[in-house]
Amino acid sequence: MTQVDLLVNAALANWKLTVKRTTGIFDELSDDQYLIPVAPGRNRPIYLLGHLTAVHDLMLPLLGIGERQHSELDVLFLSSPDGTIDVLPTISNLKKSWNDVNALLLQGFTAMTPDQWLQRHSSMTDEDFAADLTRNRYSVLLNRTNHTAFHLGQLILARKKT
Amino acid sequence: MTQVDLLVNAALANWKLTVKRTTGIFDELSDDQYLIPVAPGRNRPIYLLGHLTAVHDLMLPLLGIGERQHSELDVLFLSSPDGTIDVLPTISNLKKSWNDVNALLLQGFTAMTPDQWLQRHSSMTDEDFAADLTRNRYSVLLNRTNHTAFHLGQLILARKKT
Repeated sequence: MTQVDLLVNAALANWKLTVKRTTGIFDELSDDQYLIPVAPGRNRPIYLLGHLTAVHDLMLPLLGIGERQHSELDVLFLSSPDGTIDVLPTISNLKKSWNDVNALLLQGFTAMTPDQWLQRHSSMTDEDFAADLTRNRYSVLLNRTNHTAFHLGQLILARKKT
Repeated sequence: MTQVDLLVNAALANWKLTVKRTTGIFDELSDDQYLIPVAPGRNRPIYLLGHLTAVHDLMLPLLGIGERQHSELDVLFLSSPDGTIDVLPTISNLKKSWNDVNALLLQGFTAMTPDQWLQRHSSMTDEDFAADLTRNRYSVLLNRTNHTAFHLGQLILARKKT
């Protein structure tokens, strides 16, 4: 393997591990636990599930992998705080979307060449990118892995204390 | 810049951003807030500060950057859960250790060549590493960035709700 392959693989391994751990918690929580805030006055797991799904769904066009699958989630889980919208999708539908979007992402990631990882992401103009080559797709992958880990740290608080 | 440089820079930028955001919360919390668990029955910010400092300190030998600076933190913040040890270092001492360790790490990171990033980390044997080249220093950097982001997600719950 080349150095570039090793570096790309490291980031993919980290993404996969983080998504797997997060999915593990989503699978473990009971329906009741989904509706209890992770800390007083904070987000509920159902909101975190929708929020992470929407953010991952946005990565499809951002990284040139494909079209949005669940833009209906944006108004519920990106532009509105938790608790302000009464009717949300069911937990099982949200879980399905979460898994579907992550499967599409992983398929896209696996097909991407190092050159493609270093291309600009789609919300950058060519001019902006020329001025700052670090704002590439690979950076988005690292940044979004961190975003998932950030919310995983919160989600884990929803589990029963052992 | 070569592809390898761009990939290494992306990971360093992500590390720096995560440490900066975390330090921002540590600097913002009042002494009282440091002693209130982030959620009922969970870790207090003082524990997260000590824990993250110990984990970052461990990265110094792990990545071949230097000697441990604060191994006295291990028994307090790695092997003991929060609430089991009565006397902890002061918040201002912990903050100083946090900043010092991060400064040493950053100095080490900046001096590291791509070849060095792809070397095995010091807790791997040569034989194990030959069998799995992905367990390199760069992977440790990505993984520890995630670890910090994970606890940052919790730490942010300690701030006053706005």
